[in-house]
Amino acid sequence: MNRREEIIAFLGRDWDHVLALIRSNLHSGVALLEETNERILSNSGKMLRPVVAMLFARMIGPVSEDSCRFAAAAEMLHNATLMHDDVADESAERRGRPTLSSLLGPGPAVLVGDYWLARAVSLISASAHRNDVIPLFARTLTDLAEGEMLQLEKAGSANTSEEDYLRIIYCKTASLFSVAAETAAISVAATPEQREASRAYGSALGIAFQIKDDILDYAGTDALGKPVGVDLKEQKITLPLLAALEGSPRENEIRAMVREIPSHPEHCDAIRAFVAERDGIAAASRRLGEWVARAEEALDVFPDGEARQMLVRIARFNMIREV
Amino acid sequence: MNRREEIIAFLGRDWDHVLALIRSNLHSGVALLEETNERILSNSGKMLRPVVAMLFARMIGPVSEDSCRFAAAAEMLHNATLMHDDVADESAERRGRPTLSSLLGPGPAVLVGDYWLARAVSLISASAHRNDVIPLFARTLTDLAEGEMLQLEKAGSANTSEEDYLRIIYCKTASLFSVAAETAAISVAATPEQREASRAYGSALGIAFQIKDDILDYAGTDALGKPVGVDLKEQKITLPLLAALEGSPRENEIRAMVREIPSHPEHCDAIRAFVAERDGIAAASRRLGEWVARAEEALDVFPDGEARQMLVRIARFNMIREV
Repeated sequence: MNRREEIIAFLGRDWDHVLALIRSNLHSGVALLEETNERILSNSGKMLRPVVAMLFARMIGPVSEDSCRFAAAAEMLHNATLMHDDVADESAERRGRPTLSSLLGPGPAVLVGDYWLARAVSLISASAHRNDVIPLFARTLTDLAEGEMLQLEKAGSANTSEEDYLRIIYCKTASLFSVAAETAAISVAATPEQREASRAYGSALGIAFQIKDDILDYAGTDALGKPVGVDLKEQKITLPLLAALEGSPRENEIRAMVREIPSHPEHCDAIRAFVAERDGIAAASRRLGEWVARAEEALDVFPDGEARQMLVRIARFNMIREV
Repeated sequence: MNRREEIIAFLGRDWDHVLALIRSNLHSGVALLEETNERILSNSGKMLRPVVAMLFARMIGPVSEDSCRFAAAAEMLHNATLMHDDVADESAERRGRPTLSSLLGPGPAVLVGDYWLARAVSLISASAHRNDVIPLFARTLTDLAEGEMLQLEKAGSANTSEEDYLRIIYCKTASLFSVAAETAAISVAATPEQREASRAYGSALGIAFQIKDDILDYAGTDALGKPVGVDLKEQKITLPLLAALEGSPRENEIRAMVREIPSHPEHCDAIRAFVAERDGIAAASRRLGEWVARAEEALDVFPDGEARQMLVRIARFNMIREV
């Protein structure tokens, strides 16, 4: 039994109920939509957001119907944005299988994403805590779109600062982890202190998670169908490069090279060599460690126990994962 | 002063407030998003959904802050789905100007659409009637996606029945008019009978509106940058063709021709000749007239007055408009 299976076994029937809620809320009388949903559900990945949400609900407890609803909604929202991101990035593969947009065209991928969004909103609007929770999910959807747009804006000018970078990855990744953890706390009537700690854990976990992804784009292998070096090709300046640029006399020169990548793709190799020379990956890994520590510290307000230990392991896993 | 200007003048400061709410709720700190929003707002079209909503709010009255919020949200949702539709249809132009997806690529068009959706949800979730209204808007977003997917599914098989057609156009077009009118009624504490009548008007108006668009695709001119004959090229079977097929011994043959359009685009001319020969447009226009009459009848429960007369005129306008 690996670590994920252990967590799923720990969550037990509550986890089954989350999966059942996702499935039943996506049900449609339109056959093409049913087939498409089935294809996405059968390639679900690790479902880390609802796992984190359910661990918070369990840790604070007792798990309620709303805990399962919000966990399901977080996963539905995540999948909706993945479908939209695949259209935006014109990605051919996701989790080693063809994307919806490469199979059926961008149109269905956009529409099915909208459908998942709409069903997530419906699911939340049936909850007892809807008045607290709907604005939080709406804020996260705003963050996701703003983060992608900010990233796009910065990609053209190559002037991303570390502050811009943190804002982008908070919006793109951490906001959804944060809302998953915070709404889990709300679902079990957590105290304000517990709610704030849940939000802080989700936020730090999400930032750590994205920093690790960005490190792997420099240091990773081509496993899981995810090629490396993609960010730089798209002129995205991420933490390994930012760390390498810090205090370097070549900063202006390197940023100018990033701006020229569309017409000079060979700059990518030179920039990667610069990052290696300046130990950018090691510096980014130290920052990753700080965010993992922040996630762990946020858990201090909760009593020790299996759920808390699992949340610690999930945060630390970002220090070692290779994909 | 044309008829639309007359309505806007009648709505007065309430209309200005709707426009201000749209603008203030879309405000973003991301410059690229601000520019993009500005571009869309400056090419707004007739804004028929919030116009209808505000006329209902005024007719039942008195107009409340929620009336303006829901009208603004309906327009934001409409624009979000237009951006997504333009990606889905790979449209180069909308209202005679380049679409966002043709200007900036499909990615920004999808993301800006998501942003508008998210901001619409935020706007509604600040309202006093949110518990009644959020599920209705979520249902409409579901309808929009299901309608497009059903249309896509049917396009491949060319077996669209009139029942399928009505379901598709309800989902694609009428659901949003219906929610605009019904939430306007909710915003002014309408009686259940008034609320039902508002919903019925919106629904019938939306169906009439879409039937007219489908007729113009057979009978219209290339005005306003909207070319004719597009539906058939995309294998969409709409009311003029359905009416022509009704009782025709050539039904199976014509449907087989629709299936072959991708490899035999010349079939389009033969099918259009078939529709003309069988008077399909006249038959569709009669059906349009029936839906306009239904919309008018729904208004019977309201006292006569300027707002009601304007709603009658809006419904009837579908019988005469040429674009």
